[in-house]
Amino acid sequence: MRSNGRNDDGLRPLKITTQTNKYAEGSVLIEMGDTKVICTATVEEKVPPFLKGQGKGWVTAEYSMLPRATQSRNQREAARGKLSGRTMEIQRLIGRALRSVVNLQALGERSITLDCDVIQADGGTRTASITGSFVALAFAVNKIALQHRLSVFPITDYLAAISVGIVGDRPLLDLNYEEDSKAKVDMNVVMTGSGEFVELQGTGEERPFSRKELDHLLGLGEKGILELIAAQKEALGPIALKIPAGQPGKEV
Amino acid sequence: MRSNGRNDDGLRPLKITTQTNKYAEGSVLIEMGDTKVICTATVEEKVPPFLKGQGKGWVTAEYSMLPRATQSRNQREAARGKLSGRTMEIQRLIGRALRSVVNLQALGERSITLDCDVIQADGGTRTASITGSFVALAFAVNKIALQHRLSVFPITDYLAAISVGIVGDRPLLDLNYEEDSKAKVDMNVVMTGSGEFVELQGTGEERPFSRKELDHLLGLGEKGILELIAAQKEALGPIALKIPAGQPGKEV
Amino acid sequence: MRSNGRNDDGLRPLKITTQTNKYAEGSVLIEMGDTKVICTATVEEKVPPFLKGQGKGWVTAEYSMLPRATQSRNQREAARGKLSGRTMEIQRLIGRALRSVVNLQALGERSITLDCDVIQADGGTRTASITGSFVALAFAVNKIALQHRLSVFPITDYLAAISVGIVGDRPLLDLNYEEDSKAKVDMNVVMTGSGEFVELQGTGEERPFSRKELDHLLGLGEKGILELIAAQKEALGPIALKIPAGQPGKEV
Amino acid sequence: MRSNGRNDDGLRPLKITTQTNKYAEGSVLIEMGDTKVICTATVEEKVPPFLKGQGKGWVTAEYSMLPRATQSRNQREAARGKLSGRTMEIQRLIGRALRSVVNLQALGERSITLDCDVIQADGGTRTASITGSFVALAFAVNKIALQHRLSVFPITDYLAAISVGIVGDRPLLDLNYEEDSKAKVDMNVVMTGSGEFVELQGTGEERPFSRKELDHLLGLGEKGILELIAAQKEALGPIALKIPAGQPGKEV
Amino acid sequence: MRSNGRNDDGLRPLKITTQTNKYAEGSVLIEMGDTKVICTATVEEKVPPFLKGQGKGWVTAEYSMLPRATQSRNQREAARGKLSGRTMEIQRLIGRALRSVVNLQALGERSITLDCDVIQADGGTRTASITGSFVALAFAVNKIALQHRLSVFPITDYLAAISVGIVGDRPLLDLNYEEDSKAKVDMNVVMTGSGEFVELQGTGEERPFSRKELDHLLGLGEKGILELIAAQKEALGPIALKIPAGQPGKEV
Amino acid sequence: MRSNGRNDDGLRPLKITTQTNKYAEGSVLIEMGDTKVICTATVEEKVPPFLKGQGKGWVTAEYSMLPRATQSRNQREAARGKLSGRTMEIQRLIGRALRSVVNLQALGERSITLDCDVIQADGGTRTASITGSFVALAFAVNKIALQHRLSVFPITDYLAAISVGIVGDRPLLDLNYEEDSKAKVDMNVVMTGSGEFVELQGTGEERPFSRKELDHLLGLGEKGILELIAAQKEALGPIALKIPAGQPGKEV
Repeated sequence: MRSNGRNDDGLRPLKITTQTNKYAEGSVLIEMGDTKVICTATVEEKVPPFLKGQGKGWVTAEYSMLPRATQSRNQREAARGKLSGRTMEIQRLIGRALRSVVNLQALGERSITLDCDVIQADGGTRTASITGSFVALAFAVNKIALQHRLSVFPITDYLAAISVGIVGDRPLLDLNYEEDSKAKVDMNVVMTGSGEFVELQGTGEERPFSRKELDHLLGLGEKGILELIAAQKEALGPIALKIPAGQPGKEV
Repeated sequence: MRSNGRNDDGLRPLKITTQTNKYAEGSVLIEMGDTKVICTATVEEKVPPFLKGQGKGWVTAEYSMLPRATQSRNQREAARGKLSGRTMEIQRLIGRALRSVVNLQALGERSITLDCDVIQADGGTRTASITGSFVALAFAVNKIALQHRLSVFPITDYLAAISVGIVGDRPLLDLNYEEDSKAKVDMNVVMTGSGEFVELQGTGEERPFSRKELDHLLGLGEKGILELIAAQKEALGPIALKIPAGQPGKEV
Repeated sequence: MRSNGRNDDGLRPLKITTQTNKYAEGSVLIEMGDTKVICTATVEEKVPPFLKGQGKGWVTAEYSMLPRATQSRNQREAARGKLSGRTMEIQRLIGRALRSVVNLQALGERSITLDCDVIQADGGTRTASITGSFVALAFAVNKIALQHRLSVFPITDYLAAISVGIVGDRPLLDLNYEEDSKAKVDMNVVMTGSGEFVELQGTGEERPFSRKELDHLLGLGEKGILELIAAQKEALGPIALKIPAGQPGKEV
Repeated sequence: MRSNGRNDDGLRPLKITTQTNKYAEGSVLIEMGDTKVICTATVEEKVPPFLKGQGKGWVTAEYSMLPRATQSRNQREAARGKLSGRTMEIQRLIGRALRSVVNLQALGERSITLDCDVIQADGGTRTASITGSFVALAFAVNKIALQHRLSVFPITDYLAAISVGIVGDRPLLDLNYEEDSKAKVDMNVVMTGSGEFVELQGTGEERPFSRKELDHLLGLGEKGILELIAAQKEALGPIALKIPAGQPGKEV
Repeated sequence: MRSNGRNDDGLRPLKITTQTNKYAEGSVLIEMGDTKVICTATVEEKVPPFLKGQGKGWVTAEYSMLPRATQSRNQREAARGKLSGRTMEIQRLIGRALRSVVNLQALGERSITLDCDVIQADGGTRTASITGSFVALAFAVNKIALQHRLSVFPITDYLAAISVGIVGDRPLLDLNYEEDSKAKVDMNVVMTGSGEFVELQGTGEERPFSRKELDHLLGLGEKGILELIAAQKEALGPIALKIPAGQPGKEV
Repeated sequence: MRSNGRNDDGLRPLKITTQTNKYAEGSVLIEMGDTKVICTATVEEKVPPFLKGQGKGWVTAEYSMLPRATQSRNQREAARGKLSGRTMEIQRLIGRALRSVVNLQALGERSITLDCDVIQADGGTRTASITGSFVALAFAVNKIALQHRLSVFPITDYLAAISVGIVGDRPLLDLNYEEDSKAKVDMNVVMTGSGEFVELQGTGEERPFSRKELDHLLGLGEKGILELIAAQKEALGPIALKIPAGQPGKEV
């Protein structure tokens, strides 16, 4: 049996608390089981140098874990003087995923930074960061839309992410830390509301995996993401209605 | 009038939530008005190189603000690749203050790191970090005491800190950010339960200050710290009884 | 038409030159079209601290591009004082992929570092690095096997990698730089000789992709990898025979 | 008895040599006993980015010790690649203290950097740096005033600093290294010519200190600073007359 | 006997392959025995800040060794986060030497960067870098001359470099690694086509050296450089004719 | 005419003050005209890792300029976070030169660090550092010899250094900053008491130089170094007698 009495295709208890920070344009505390991530969205009326003067906006992300988010304390990256490869990989992933559902032209020449700070980690922090950041991003974009009367709402579809993996021989949805550390195959799936893939990262940690296993894992991921997007809609309330129902196979 | 309808010698609403992290040996969320700091205590069975083999322990602290803890977003120190002077100054202060009420000999050859992560900042983050860290530290020390049956409880007195300052011509207790940014004189006071000073840092930001003004500010600080220590005792519950009532003028 | 008159499922001209460095335990110059990467394998009789005393070995990789490997000159990472996120991501991928076909126990307490230095870049440098590194690794492992009379040959299967992607609406194999920069979907596939996945990284750069498109891309990747592994066998000569024919679904 | 046969309220032999550097706009070698600090003032016709276009000037400080300024050699911070927390704390203190007696508006849009390089250290290097830097600063400001015919002399009062502390039970003025390393309480006092505090930093290194002890220490500090300011006036010669006699309680 | 059956005044087998990189404005692979260096020249239409607006150009160099260019693997400088003193010294030397035969005024406000990447090292990498870079530079300058119709060809003379040294008591030309590591005296000579010195760096590694020994070494160096310049001319083909035959004693 | 009414082959006024630091094992303030360098020698009873257990000692050097040692202020290398190429090159030169006259075997397993801190710079700081460091080194070695009763005095010869150069068409000895910045050719000469070369670094800054010019410059250097060594002997007093009169052409 899995912890919490979950089925193999079950998510952990999920909670999305919004507007947790009085300064940020959007903010969320997302809890998936014991994994807790604060996601804040900051809007700035400027873009990185490589985008200047093109009338387009930018969305980017940063990721960090508090030193004692995990079982034993990790040294701060600020103290070590540099970001680890893992951190860079994760924040590049989050930013890339979020940009895939933002119409940067419609956003106008401004940038939004999503800060994902992991308060407590129990597996799946990068996927929780994506799912939570999407909600914070939507709040921030809505604020811009209200202030600047944009003609098009710049978010083009819902977006959420989940981990799947093979533990022993069982494909499982939403691995916690204990499961993750025993997983033979590990995969992160990022999908849109229209059911298409934005990012797929699978790794045979302990052994390679077959095409059939891949298919099974993708099915689990799809199921989990549908549930996550339902929770996002609830958390967004009226903002949810502004996001178009993406259509499979259509370019956004 | 001050925000919250406070008097000049009033603290902001104070809330200390304990055991907020499932891994840390001690953890606290301290809220003073809109200032919110997570303090976690990590116990490790090793000491820094300069203390090895002396049978003594060590207590140290690290301090950081989430990028959007403030009105506008700050670049992460990990991204910049180094700690700012302000951060170093603050974490040295927190560690030094906490060590002043710990009997390092009684602690044995182990170290405790207090991580102070500011989730939201509205003035007084360094003093809130000290006040909150003391509680997290006491939980962690208690855990050690229970496991290792120490003959002496290694904490020798209570410890709390508060800011005071002169705004316009009015000496005020517990400045929020708006008051702090207008303050002509700014002072941080760290005191023990026995009413003695552990640290005193006063700066004439806009003008120097007289001996008489100093006396007034110290009076305010003393009043505030008594209230903070009362709140610490409540948060600590039975652990509170293990901490000796320090006596003025006695070496600890 | 694609450059070189290739079909959509065709590889670029491939050339693997072995033993290009007189000091390294294994060395390869791999050329895929205009992409050229030097891969050298260094054997050291020591392991990283986290593996000490476990009787197991380690395989890791580093990746770098010469400043003028690309159309315009890039600043050296040594001059900037830190590795980019892209570099870290790539070298983590290469190391992880290679370790998946090495029996670290059989290798014994020694480590092998694969240095992948891109002399000229025209798309697909990370997959060429994996494919070339596998050959350099096999030479180095063979050298160890000869010197230390290992009872088991520590490489458990072949390994190669290729990029696939969707340009316009056409799924293509082995994208060059020009194709890659226009690709709407981009995927790197790492597979073993037994036809199973070791790593799968797909990104919807310009739009999300459907399950059907994914299937198409995986088919292309599989075809390309079979051809790459044939070329590896030829380059390895008699060493090729020492590597077991991996069997799908079996743990290695 | 203290070294040099000093009384508890006595300063060490003090020597201020001016114009020791042929390039700097102001320069001083200050010796307090065996503590020797070179202070140079550099004037530049530019201000930091955050002050641009405001018509105001800036005063800042940097502090460093030669590697063999102390009993055993310290690694250079340039070799370690970063400033220590101690160095940052000290140079922030020196700059803040000096700015408190400079009318930045009257200085005009230019900046003055005080470099404090400790040639030999025997306790009290940060306070000697402040006292010496004030003299170097006054020479530099005078040079500006002569060249640019400023309508107001931008220095508004004298400024000096001294350490006091409690060794055993005796409150002492101007601790040397040996006394400092045994001190139970340690305090740095920065005062103006009008007898008001600019900065007060007291630390209970070995035990907390009472209000009564604080009062005693402040008295010692005040006595020492009066003597230091007298020496500064002598070193400044005619420039001394240009500095207003600050009045207690008045904003400058 | 020396390796390759060389005489004391003989160069190792020399090979200069040109246009080895499809992107760079000039590129060369120089091989001197087992020492192999890739030299690429990059032209950029901008100059460093200190030269802006002066109508002059700039020539600079960077030097690096692949990790396994030597018998044992060296850590990458990018991984260590900083350049070694040796690297800095070498790249300063290469840039300075090349600039001595370039008329920066005639080059116009553009800069040329020579990247010297050592693929395999067997002694004499810095002198091979200079000799090879000169050829890459000439190709790049020729390209500029053709595009911009410069009135004067900006290269003013040929330039090559070679190492000489005393091994045992024998002065030798062009030391390989084994000879270099036993050398008592080690010298690098950089000369122009007109037979004058541009740079001379001699070090008594194991013992000082006399004036007479110096004279002997300079003679060997001169002989070697004449041969190197002959090879450069051949590699340059028609470009060789555009470079003036420098005249001894004349300022260029 | 040159400044100070010097002849072309004249040194600037030279002053060597010894024992300027109360902690260091050897210390010197060397002044050559307006160039002033503090050289301190630190003895430590340990050697760098690469020498451990070989019974040999080590001599090394570090070099730094105070920010305002020059006409305009330079940023501190500690603030920039890394040493410049120029600094590394100079400190490598100083260490290498000093080691050439030290019998590291006779020194025993200990190391001596020479810190050269330039207080004021007016040309020739690296050669002044070598000349001054030799005296500080001799004091430190003498101290070791007295304490440890070494059988052989570990210094094998005198050592001094001077700059020479060609300004206009005139070869000059000991260039000051103004001369140095106009020099067409610039050379640093390091020689032993026995009149042999330890290091020779000549650069054609503005034009190449002929063999005849080289000979002229070497003659000037030799003359200057004889005078410097005479001054070193005077500064060393009785220690001077312990240093063997090196013999030309003999290995030390």
